[in-house]
Amino acid sequence: MSGPASRVSAIKSQISQSAPTATESDINTSTTMSTDYKFQGWLGLDKDSANGNMVWQGYEPKPFEEIDVDIKITHCGICGSDIHTLRSGWGATKYPVCVGHEIVGHAVRVGSKVKGIKVGDRVGVGAQSGSCQGQKGDCDMCADGLEQHCPRGTSTYDSKWPDGSKSYGGYADYWRGRGHMVIPIPEGMPSECAAPMLCGGITAFSPLTQHGAGPDTKVGIIGIGGLGHFGILGAKALGCKTIVAISRTSAKKEDAMKMGATDFLATDEDSHWTRKARGSLDLIVSTVSSPKMPLQKYLSLLRFNGTFVQVGAPEDAVPGFNMFSLMGKRAKITGSMIGSPQEIKDMLQLFQEKGIRTWNNNVPLKDANQAVVDMEDGKARYRYVLVHEKHVAEASKL
Amino acid sequence: MSGPASRVSAIKSQISQSAPTATESDINTSTTMSTDYKFQGWLGLDKDSANGNMVWQGYEPKPFEEIDVDIKITHCGICGSDIHTLRSGWGATKYPVCVGHEIVGHAVRVGSKVKGIKVGDRVGVGAQSGSCQGQKGDCDMCADGLEQHCPRGTSTYDSKWPDGSKSYGGYADYWRGRGHMVIPIPEGMPSECAAPMLCGGITAFSPLTQHGAGPDTKVGIIGIGGLGHFGILGAKALGCKTIVAISRTSAKKEDAMKMGATDFLATDEDSHWTRKARGSLDLIVSTVSSPKMPLQKYLSLLRFNGTFVQVGAPEDAVPGFNMFSLMGKRAKITGSMIGSPQEIKDMLQLFQEKGIRTWNNNVPLKDANQAVVDMEDGKARYRYVLVHEKHVAEASKL
Repeated sequence: MSGPASRVSAIKSQISQSAPTATESDINTSTTMSTDYKFQGWLGLDKDSANGNMVWQGYEPKPFEEIDVDIKITHCGICGSDIHTLRSGWGATKYPVCVGHEIVGHAVRVGSKVKGIKVGDRVGVGAQSGSCQGQKGDCDMCADGLEQHCPRGTSTYDSKWPDGSKSYGGYADYWRGRGHMVIPIPEGMPSECAAPMLCGGITAFSPLTQHGAGPDTKVGIIGIGGLGHFGILGAKALGCKTIVAISRTSAKKEDAMKMGATDFLATDEDSHWTRKARGSLDLIVSTVSSPKMPLQKYLSLLRFNGTFVQVGAPEDAVPGFNMFSLMGKRAKITGSMIGSPQEIKDMLQLFQEKGIRTWNNNVPLKDANQAVVDMEDGKARYRYVLVHEKHVAEASKL
Repeated sequence: MSGPASRVSAIKSQISQSAPTATESDINTSTTMSTDYKFQGWLGLDKDSANGNMVWQGYEPKPFEEIDVDIKITHCGICGSDIHTLRSGWGATKYPVCVGHEIVGHAVRVGSKVKGIKVGDRVGVGAQSGSCQGQKGDCDMCADGLEQHCPRGTSTYDSKWPDGSKSYGGYADYWRGRGHMVIPIPEGMPSECAAPMLCGGITAFSPLTQHGAGPDTKVGIIGIGGLGHFGILGAKALGCKTIVAISRTSAKKEDAMKMGATDFLATDEDSHWTRKARGSLDLIVSTVSSPKMPLQKYLSLLRFNGTFVQVGAPEDAVPGFNMFSLMGKRAKITGSMIGSPQEIKDMLQLFQEKGIRTWNNNVPLKDANQAVVDMEDGKARYRYVLVHEKHVAEASKL
């Protein structure tokens, strides 16, 4: 994708109006392809933006620091989180917002303190990868002695960097953020397949590995949407011999079986679904986000020591349940969000090795508004990817 | 407690009307002290029995089998389960019922196929110890090739043995049941302290070991009643350096600190309790059984990867909660009931080694009705134990 020539550029050419926040010391030490670019993207200005009313506008990125990377975006997946955020569904969004955290492109500027990424590399960035998600100080950045720069809970977009500037996402030309959040994409993995894996993929895949899914693990995947399809693909990649797809109707049964499901339960069509599968599953990954989910019934499907992992993110509380559902069989309810950079790397590698690919629907970036509406209408089969056609064309010439 | 002489008895003397269900082959092969005893106890005849209206009556025990043991009861703890069962709180009880599953006494008849227990041994039996609690076939009895005799979910009382006969509990003179459920009491451990550990103790202790509690585990114990006091004692026995007792009021603070708590939160008295302890605990054992528990707030106390274990058994569903409470920090809600015979043996041994003792209130067996009422009124400090004074006196002469 990138020869040595593309990485050679005179210091002079790096001085550019379009990187207005770069300081002289940044420019002297960071490696760049070209910083002759502006930050522009689809911005949500208010809640109505979720209805396909984002506007294409320029914005000010964070000041470049020596631990940052700029990515020239070629692909960005559409994630449910984007729509929750556009409509302030998870709390008040800091408008204007540029959503998108399933970003793939090429590194065009790499801070001198960034390890493992060089200008020209095909890279990706996920939702919050690399910052401290749990205990303070437990991330790679902190481990590298960069604790003061750790963005803590900073997300790819709708968040603030430690210096107070806003983070902006990937429905855009470029993305700027911490190098620790940036992940190389394995050779051979198409960018359009990799992009949705950086949030959707790892969200469904991480709980499978956290809870030791392997050939003998009987896995259930609830909800056959973008996340659910990754759950099935992930369980298949891990060699699980029992993968039960659970959906309200059988509309997606054929697809689910093609993805790798071994069984299918249609909960609205089969009044015996709980009886059929009671006590049969070791691990359930629930990707549904409706707070009306029949949690108690789902729990009845677990075996002794079984685990129910919620990864779909309901905007409201889920229903109460009877603790006996858990007590007698020492079953667990837990949740998981996204995953660490290392988990993402491992997943990308495994999918590449097994030849397992995202089922994606590509849409030109210019049609982002329509794609958001279609996504919300449940039309994705199974993950929309915005394609920056101009940048793809330019990348192909590198 | 028992010399060889007491174990020697002629076959003749074993033939007795008071063991009406014993067959000739049982009598010829089982070892007994004396079977000149009747099965009598406090029976609940209907829901009203929970209000202190049990009646002293005889009943027919199960037919003795060669894998069974008869225990001459000296002590029986009063467990919350007893009261739930007397009033049909967990579903319809099979009246008449004799409750009590924290039984200590002496083995007076031991089937020829029972291992590790001999006549005269001081032994105990807990709630459901020894039968398959999880996957079928995973208990000691099944492992010993006695799968056809495994009582599966059979409990000490209000349950049915594989042969269809009823199980009766320990508010009584004698108990008869599977030898695999019977546990030796370590030398030096007072019977009155051991009894409540066989259900209450292991219920609170098992989740501590299941989830790896040790010196660096920050433990919270919710509810300072019978179970909660065992939670604190158990965490202390395991060397936990942070043990936060959580109660509605500070009425039991002094006791909790004496038991081994290092901190105390009074949730009805301190409006800042969640803020004070947010994200601070690795493991919470919830012993409260009110379905109105503030589950969401309790979950806020967990650290990354933290675990909330419910051991108190609410009769109704607990409130709904927001899955984000779990997702961001990969926290878990789980439950646990009692524990295996091996877990009970390990706990008894640890408490004995550390010199940690149950806080018990002894009551003569004849006053069982009053004790049940007092227990329900929350008067236990912290565990009522019914003492069969006649049997204690007889045992002291052995």
